[in-house]
Amino acid sequence: MTDLEKLRERTAELADLECVQMLLGWDQQVMMPSEGAEARSQQLGTVARLNHELARDEQLGRWLDGLDRLDGSGLDGVDADIVRLARRDWERARRVPDELAAELASAGAEGQQRWQQARAADDFSMFAPALERNVTLAREYGALVADDGHTPYEGLLGDYDFGVRADDLRTLFGALADGLLALVEDAERYSPPVTLQVPVPAQEVAVAGTLARLGVDPVGWRVDVSAHPFTAWIGRGDTRVTVRYSDGNVESLLAALHEYGHALYERQIDPALIRTNLGRGTSMSIHESQSKLWENHVARSSPFAELLAAELATAGFAIDPGELYASLTGVQRSLVRVTADALTYPLHIVLRFELELALIEGDLTVADLPGAWSEGVRRLLGLEVPSDALGALQDVHWGAGSFGYFPSYALGCLIAAQLWETLERELGSREEELRRGEGGSIRAWLGERVHRHGRRLDTTELVERETGAPLSIDPFIRYVEPLARPR
Amino acid sequence: MTDLEKLRERTAELADLECVQMLLGWDQQVMMPSEGAEARSQQLGTVARLNHELARDEQLGRWLDGLDRLDGSGLDGVDADIVRLARRDWERARRVPDELAAELASAGAEGQQRWQQARAADDFSMFAPALERNVTLAREYGALVADDGHTPYEGLLGDYDFGVRADDLRTLFGALADGLLALVEDAERYSPPVTLQVPVPAQEVAVAGTLARLGVDPVGWRVDVSAHPFTAWIGRGDTRVTVRYSDGNVESLLAALHEYGHALYERQIDPALIRTNLGRGTSMSIHESQSKLWENHVARSSPFAELLAAELATAGFAIDPGELYASLTGVQRSLVRVTADALTYPLHIVLRFELELALIEGDLTVADLPGAWSEGVRRLLGLEVPSDALGALQDVHWGAGSFGYFPSYALGCLIAAQLWETLERELGSREEELRRGEGGSIRAWLGERVHRHGRRLDTTELVERETGAPLSIDPFIRYVEPLARPR
Repeated sequence: MTDLEKLRERTAELADLECVQMLLGWDQQVMMPSEGAEARSQQLGTVARLNHELARDEQLGRWLDGLDRLDGSGLDGVDADIVRLARRDWERARRVPDELAAELASAGAEGQQRWQQARAADDFSMFAPALERNVTLAREYGALVADDGHTPYEGLLGDYDFGVRADDLRTLFGALADGLLALVEDAERYSPPVTLQVPVPAQEVAVAGTLARLGVDPVGWRVDVSAHPFTAWIGRGDTRVTVRYSDGNVESLLAALHEYGHALYERQIDPALIRTNLGRGTSMSIHESQSKLWENHVARSSPFAELLAAELATAGFAIDPGELYASLTGVQRSLVRVTADALTYPLHIVLRFELELALIEGDLTVADLPGAWSEGVRRLLGLEVPSDALGALQDVHWGAGSFGYFPSYALGCLIAAQLWETLERELGSREEELRRGEGGSIRAWLGERVHRHGRRLDTTELVERETGAPLSIDPFIRYVEPLARPR
Repeated sequence: MTDLEKLRERTAELADLECVQMLLGWDQQVMMPSEGAEARSQQLGTVARLNHELARDEQLGRWLDGLDRLDGSGLDGVDADIVRLARRDWERARRVPDELAAELASAGAEGQQRWQQARAADDFSMFAPALERNVTLAREYGALVADDGHTPYEGLLGDYDFGVRADDLRTLFGALADGLLALVEDAERYSPPVTLQVPVPAQEVAVAGTLARLGVDPVGWRVDVSAHPFTAWIGRGDTRVTVRYSDGNVESLLAALHEYGHALYERQIDPALIRTNLGRGTSMSIHESQSKLWENHVARSSPFAELLAAELATAGFAIDPGELYASLTGVQRSLVRVTADALTYPLHIVLRFELELALIEGDLTVADLPGAWSEGVRRLLGLEVPSDALGALQDVHWGAGSFGYFPSYALGCLIAAQLWETLERELGSREEELRRGEGGSIRAWLGERVHRHGRRLDTTELVERETGAPLSIDPFIRYVEPLARPR
């Protein structure tokens, strides 16, 4: 076998192991009897360790060196990208000593546990030492994996959105916050929150009907219920989304469309890239852009509300489409990220970005975090934080050792809006198609312009190439502006 | 880390990977969307290859050599057995060159495909070349893994029932066939087959109720439906059995109890052995003895029929317990192994053992197999074989490259009867307990005498030690004899 063949075989094995990890995780959340938890965590640990060993293997480096000596000659586009990404992934993997990898894993596991206990007790001080340890380790890890001229925080970002610069985020998110703050009071006035009482069985019918219209069929998909909605791509032709239901507003439908967006991305990657290191979504923010596109631009659209009202009617729940639309688009500043509306959601992310950047760069101590959180919520959301549980203990991410992940949530909103504007500029308004509950042209456009590339294009490169403009806040501001006008 | 610690860590990894393979297989049969099939087979292939590499790794041999130099000093019983079995497994794994392992895998996969096509066309000649290849490869493999003084067929047996000798099987199965043939005509007369029409919903209630009485709870078990019933032990506290239903007799209940027996075995292994190479059932025939014990001696007992009739009554299906018992114990010679009754079932196995032994030992050519099959069916079952599909194409095993597996089905029947006699000799008749639908004392006895050992005792050693007698056909003959007497 040539070095390239060996490399491709290894990437196929690694891709398989990632699918196996997906399945272990999906099963854990959806199917596993509760007493299997301990064994499952051991199984996940063993597969992750084997995956890591194969990813940082010295042999892989020798194949890459062999290919470097060929100097790219004779490699076609896909193979050249396989080699380029393999070099990047291998370099990043091998810069992390085994001891640090083990310490990161154990600190992340312990941090999650401490976070849970501290949140239940509403006492940040119980969490502080574990967070301190996570910050220190993340800083060390970020410095090791950062490319030359990049900061440790950018090293951390690279695990989720390779190539994104912290200064660019600072500028972008600063302007985003200003733009949203200029709209929020009017939006609260003209798009007030609306509470519905849609029974769960009607929601179930609407979710099943809507997903079926969008191509979710039982031969290639599963739709199950879990405590937190998520998507697992177990392999080509095997995509699994989960939803959850509660009486009230139709958040289940927003969540279902959100997960559908993630799922569709992985399903429409060029088949030629499957079982290579290019055969998955390129970054967290492009992934989030796909979920947000279906959540914000499809599910929260007025024509879609008509369709959804019709679906609910078939389940015996009569509702005016306008009222349904109002419930999907109501704006009100609140303390909680995960239930925030489309307009104020990014403000929660800007807060977290500012704070985690300051923690990693040493401009903020862990002890000062709760105070800084309160100050940020006052500035960005105009609210007072009444407790740690609703403040600095709100999200698990830092407890689990994830720094640099939060930006992708806001970047996803921005990129979704920018892609949607491009799509409608090129294809014309999708209103009629959405009213019919179809999505064929949207799926095809996304497949061609975003999905098929897999990891061949990084975040900013993909956005610029496919929208013809650098990443910008303007399309998102244009998307939320109508909410701040009289309806 | 000491060599022992390294060895134990490796056995833990291997145990985890076996659980992962179990989950991949379970999911494939029970949950996976059909279009995920190709990706799943790739994932299974990758995990199996990694497993094999870790199992035959040279490092493992060096740790074993290091431990050998210690000469067992300081190793307690469990550790000594871990080392003993690790040596055995490693030697067997490393005797097989990678090329042969790959060829066995591909010949097995192709053989299954050819078998399917040939069976659909009812044409043995379509299958013959693939079977020829499987026989040749199996002979080669068996010769490589056989210990000194053992035949290739015994090498093959060793994958399923280590240490069992072909001559012993020949003697045992010869006597078994004679014993059963002496009973079968009377049994057909006095225990004729009875056909019921139990609707599926009633069966579902009875299966769920019966399993719940036996301790199957949702925190540690799953019960699902699949095309073929099977059991998967995904990890400690995570046991999954599947059943299938069809209108008619309550085969679903026999199958459910059969799978319960397999499941209970794995669940009751000494926790100290979990994640070592000792932490699973010791052999196919002991495993089958556990399923057959619950199927033959519990589910096919008269007091259990009373309980089952009561369960069916709660689901609105009234039936006389005597009639139900008669349907569970009816005897009639037939051409099909998987639906055979308790008495004639082992005759099907004796046939397959004789034929596969002759194939491997070169006393029978593949071309002559259909004729030999017909002759054997005439001799053992008194029937004429009308087609290849009901003859030599009946089972997938040889197509998949499995030789030496069949004996465990009959050994399981024999061992189940021998264990059950011992249990009732020691604890007294279990009739009252079975009438109450409980099984606590049976579970406890099996846990103590069979299950907890894991792989520490091989098949014949376990039987002799725990029943006080060598493996014998007598208890099984005594079990079926009443079927040949007027009721």
